[in-house]
Amino acid sequence: MKIDIITIFPEFFDSFLNTSIIKRAIEENQVDIKAHQLRDFSKRKHHYIDDTPYGGGVGMLMQFPPFYEAIHHLKNEHTKVIMLSPQGKLFNQEYAKKYAKETHVILLCGHYEGIDARVENFIDDELSIGDYVLTGGEIPAMIFTDAVTRLLPGVIHEESSELDSLQNGWLKYPQYTKPESYKGYDVPDILRSGHHGNIEMWRKEQSVKRTMQKRPDLFSKIALTEEEKKIVHKIKTTLP
Amino acid sequence: MKIDIITIFPEFFDSFLNTSIIKRAIEENQVDIKAHQLRDFSKRKHHYIDDTPYGGGVGMLMQFPPFYEAIHHLKNEHTKVIMLSPQGKLFNQEYAKKYAKETHVILLCGHYEGIDARVENFIDDELSIGDYVLTGGEIPAMIFTDAVTRLLPGVIHEESSELDSLQNGWLKYPQYTKPESYKGYDVPDILRSGHHGNIEMWRKEQSVKRTMQKRPDLFSKIALTEEEKKIVHKIKTTLP
Repeated sequence: MKIDIITIFPEFFDSFLNTSIIKRAIEENQVDIKAHQLRDFSKRKHHYIDDTPYGGGVGMLMQFPPFYEAIHHLKNEHTKVIMLSPQGKLFNQEYAKKYAKETHVILLCGHYEGIDARVENFIDDELSIGDYVLTGGEIPAMIFTDAVTRLLPGVIHEESSELDSLQNGWLKYPQYTKPESYKGYDVPDILRSGHHGNIEMWRKEQSVKRTMQKRPDLFSKIALTEEEKKIVHKIKTTLP
Repeated sequence: MKIDIITIFPEFFDSFLNTSIIKRAIEENQVDIKAHQLRDFSKRKHHYIDDTPYGGGVGMLMQFPPFYEAIHHLKNEHTKVIMLSPQGKLFNQEYAKKYAKETHVILLCGHYEGIDARVENFIDDELSIGDYVLTGGEIPAMIFTDAVTRLLPGVIHEESSELDSLQNGWLKYPQYTKPESYKGYDVPDILRSGHHGNIEMWRKEQSVKRTMQKRPDLFSKIALTEEEKKIVHKIKTTLP
């Protein structure tokens, strides 16, 4: 898979591309990620890419021509062009799975007060990573790239990826590692019992309980199995 | 405000801290942001910070002691400790505003299969930036830091910040800048009319229309003014 990022801060991605799983995925040719300087596609003096809004308004807008030129320079017939914007649909794990099946994605990073709306004629999707205001689209582009790259074949050990939080709708059970005791805080006895059946049941219960308590919005969307219904009943009747 | 980030990849934040608004806010002492190496707080050989989970399971967990030591080394009586985790409450602009009023925040970045659950005894909040699976808490820590820093006094020109998308519940109207025409795509005539009353009305309508079309979930939460009710009626009766 190839991910091209169009931005006025390509250097912003240097640390990201050199860290951890992303670096290894690039080295092993599982993904090709490039950050392109938008200014290189400006034909204006000093490679300016912004100007004031028509009809009045505060601040500067990013212009249409450099994005038009960058998109047409990079795209092929299979490319999906995605604009990262606070106005987009909320990006989630389903979108990550959807885009992990593509061969080429171009990500557009906005800045200042936004991008000239004519760019919207050339995008396949407009995505927001959450309901908060950020300086630009660079961190959202990292979010998209990280979430999608993790799902590419060979990048993550499969069993591990499937067990991550949220992969099956449930939050993960609490986990503990050595030392057994530190500053008066101990690992729960059951996890040191060696009884795998009891451990599995405890974990399932904790997982259900955590989802109910921490993310009632997620819990309400899950179609419960018969076993899960029993666990929910047990939790509801034993909670203080 | 001071933001301390505890991570096994402090270098990941280098580009972020040297770009754009964040860099200027640091230079002008509006915010102090430091990324700390978690391994420096490990007393184990080679500064290891991970181990296998009790009770069995895939992968490695981050241990409790280094986080305990890092938190207690950095915190004061006013500190808020926030763990970035896919299990947390969804971070949004309200959380950004809330935390922009604090004087000191410590952000914990998880990795691998997560952090030993005993750390939860020492956190004030657990936040998720969205329903997707990421490699670690570093990009979420950037999201938090960017969203909060923008709101600190003096960092952003106030009028501009207030006009950003989502600040008032509505998505922003489409914006256009020079050139007037490019490759057959034109700026709407009304924006070049010079009639400010008409432009304001057009923008308000576009803003309402965009929110209804792109983010029905946000639209349904807005308490409409009388003027907005009329606009909604007009849009509903004129939409194809």
